[in-house]
This record gives sequence, C-alpha cells and structure tokens, in this order.
Amino acid sequence: MSVLDQNYNPTLSVDCVIFGFDSKSLKILLIEQTKNIYKLPGSLVIKNEDLDVYADRVLKELTGLKNVYLKQFFTFGAPNRISKPEDILWIENNYKVKVKRIISTAYYSLIKIAPGTTKLYEKKHNAQWLNVAEINNLAFDHIEILKKGLKTLQNELKFNPAVCFELLPKNFSLREIQNIYEVIQDISYDNRNFRKKLMGAKYIIPTKEKQKAVAHKPAILYKFDKKIYDATFKETNLFNL
Amino acid sequence: MSVLDQNYNPTLSVDCVIFGFDSKSLKILLIEQTKNIYKLPGSLVIKNEDLDVYADRVLKELTGLKNVYLKQFFTFGAPNRISKPEDILWIENNYKVKVKRIISTAYYSLIKIAPGTTKLYEKKHNAQWLNVAEINNLAFDHIEILKKGLKTLQNELKFNPAVCFELLPKNFSLREIQNIYEVIQDISYDNRNFRKKLMGAKYIIPTKEKQKAVAHKPAILYKFDKKIYDATFKETNLFNL
Repeated sequence: MSVLDQNYNPTLSVDCVIFGFDSKSLKILLIEQTKNIYKLPGSLVIKNEDLDVYADRVLKELTGLKNVYLKQFFTFGAPNRISKPEDILWIENNYKVKVKRIISTAYYSLIKIAPGTTKLYEKKHNAQWLNVAEINNLAFDHIEILKKGLKTLQNELKFNPAVCFELLPKNFSLREIQNIYEVIQDISYDNRNFRKKLMGAKYIIPTKEKQKAVAHKPAILYKFDKKIYDATFKETNLFNL
Repeated sequence: MSVLDQNYNPTLSVDCVIFGFDSKSLKILLIEQTKNIYKLPGSLVIKNEDLDVYADRVLKELTGLKNVYLKQFFTFGAPNRISKPEDILWIENNYKVKVKRIISTAYYSLIKIAPGTTKLYEKKHNAQWLNVAEINNLAFDHIEILKKGLKTLQNELKFNPAVCFELLPKNFSLREIQNIYEVIQDISYDNRNFRKKLMGAKYIIPTKEKQKAVAHKPAILYKFDKKIYDATFKETNLFNL
C-alpha cells in the first residue's frame, strides 16, 4: 500500500508579483478576481511544465514583454492557505476541479512602466497597476505573498543595487533613483548625501539629454552601464560598520 | 470536466542542504541512498503538512538539534528532474508509490559541528558529514540543489555576515572566521586586511579564553554579540564602489 495519505491531493500554482515604477510610486500589476477584489496574476500548473517556464509565460501574456527580470522567491505551502469559501468557489468555477490543497510557487518581476506598454494586456485580463502602499486586502493569501515579495526586493536592492535600473526608463534623473530607493525601502534619504553617492558611482553615466515637460528646471538624465557595474561594484560588504 | 491534465500527478518533497563547519572545511550532511551514492536528507511530503514544519522535523530527527537556522531557498520543478531508472526505482521501493513528477522545495541549514552532536543520528540514518569541495555526484538532481544552496549561502554572507556565527562554536578565533569566508566564497583574503576589518567590527568581542591543544601559539578567542550587530551593522551597501 502506498504511504501517501489518501486525503492528500496537492495541486500546484504559480503566482507573480509584478512590480513597476512610474517615477514616483511603486506599483503592482493585479487582476480583478471579483468586483473590487484583486489577485496576483498566476494560475494552477495543469500540465507537466517547468515552474519557471510557466511563470515566464504568465508574464509574457500579461505584459507582452520578453526577457523581463523574473525571479522565484518562495513557495507557500501552509495547509490552510486557501480557506475562504469564496476563494475555494472561485477556483472550482474557474478550473472545474475540486482541490484539497494548493501549493504556490511565487515569482517577482521588475518592469519599466512606459505609456501603453501593457495597455492591451491590461484590458484583456482586466489588470490594473495599483500603488503597493495602498493595498491592504487581496484574494487568497496574496497579501502575504505580496509582503514577502516586497521584503525580497528590499533585500535584493541592498546587495545588488543594479536591480533598480530594471524599474527605470533607459535614461533617468538622479531624483528618480532616490525615489525608487525611498519607496522600496520606505526610508527617507538625505538628498545631498544620496546625490553624492550616486555621483561617485562610475556606472551611472550622464547623457546629453535633459528632462522634458517638467515645471522645474529640467534635470540632466543619466544611463546605467552594466559593464562598468560588473567590473567595479564590490558586492561584498564584509563586516562593514 | 477538469482542466487538469489526467497524466499530471505532482508529488511534493522537501530536501535539506545542511551545512556544517569543522574549523577548516565546509561540510554537508548526506545520507547513503545506495552503496556509495549519497542524497540530501529529505522525503516526500505525504500528509497535509506545512513545508516549513516538515523541513524542521527532518532536521530535528537527523541532528537532534532544535532552533537551528533553516531557510527555504528554492523550489525545483523541472518536469524531468527525476529520470534516472535507479532513482525512480528507489522511490517506488521506499514509498510504495508510483510517482509521475516530484517537485522539491529545498531548505538550507547552518549547524555548529561539535564532537558527538549528531553522532546518534548519523548512525541511525547512515548519515555522513562530507566535504562540499569534494562532492561531484549525488542521487537524483541533488547536486544541482547543493550548488544552488551554496550560491544562496554565498549571497547571504554578503549582506548578512552574521550567518557565519551560526557555523562557529560559541567562542572562536579570528582565523576561523577567515576560514569560513574563504571556503564559502572560494576566495583567498589578505590576512592582514581581513584581520583589520574583523578587529574593527564592534560586535566581535574578545573573551579571556585562548585556543587549547594547538601546536602554534594559542590565539585569543572571540564571541559574537548579536545586540551590537543589530544596532550597528548597516546592511545596505548603497552604491558602493
């Protein structure tokens, strides 16, 4: 006889925490589950398919973008993680399947929000970019997944600052970098010190472009040089004080 | 009709990469699958049980230790990850179950190896501490899991150096810290500079003890102060150069 508990019937899903930045706020791409209740983009894994391949496809279908920064960060396996009657009903209606337990592998992704980039897909899936800071309720246990995704992004930024350029347009102002750091870390930095550090980073290069259509004096735009970053950035902060 | 592919029958497992340090080498606790072929400690998840709870129990049974550093790092979901006939046969014999696909959630753990600590458990499970540097073949896809676990530990050490004290005895020499850094990062550090950095870290405190039974002049032993670390360590290495 099998050692597997007969009542134990796990199903897998993949959920994606898709972060974007609109030059001021950290956003997340969400899908309407039912009226005014949002969920993360994702789905049951219903075929013999690699989790990474599957997450990549969800992202492509939703945004139309390829080669996007996508990283697995945690698998949520609490036995009772999906327990609200409306959530169970939604799954049964949408997938025509009775599920006893769903284990979800979560990915996070960083996207440059540009006008129109994801518009078609937003319409098709009824998806919306919402402010992370304003979200306090989601379907299933997705608020937990969002929180853990944000925590992971905060850590990633600490030992690999290059991730912030995944969220910025090709050319950006120094203020935009500071904004990203401030919204992701939820800290205010001293303007002058922050700017000084950025000016000292050899991989942040001034361009000949300036900001357009701004009320204040237009700032110089910069670009990120990955080659210089890879060659000069010391990622170890060995015993700093 | 269900949308789930009838041929799709996932089973879950948990595998643990348990690191230890014997003052010179980075070790890993492995179990003999068949003669001279080793595997990571772990098992199918056969009940409706949280993955974290399950991993914690595997660790406790194997080492007898409680409150050990344990962290989920990746879920391996490639469709063909278990494909060698001998591996499939081993699972069928051990679990009396036909499995089509196994998804494994991997955890890594850091343990202080002290004489006798894990002896009883090593005997019971035929487990052994082997040198990470000398392992190039394991059952299933466990060599991939080990590599990814080591990579994760390397990253962790970069932004959270406190993890190295999970591997050291309560009192340790500065040389032992350098050894840990060198074996985990696979880099040689300049002795004088490394020592200088350690001496500057306020959370590494000299004790009145010295090394015992060593051939050379016995070194002073130090201890780690977590409170000072939490208060003084700046984990952000914002745009360093």
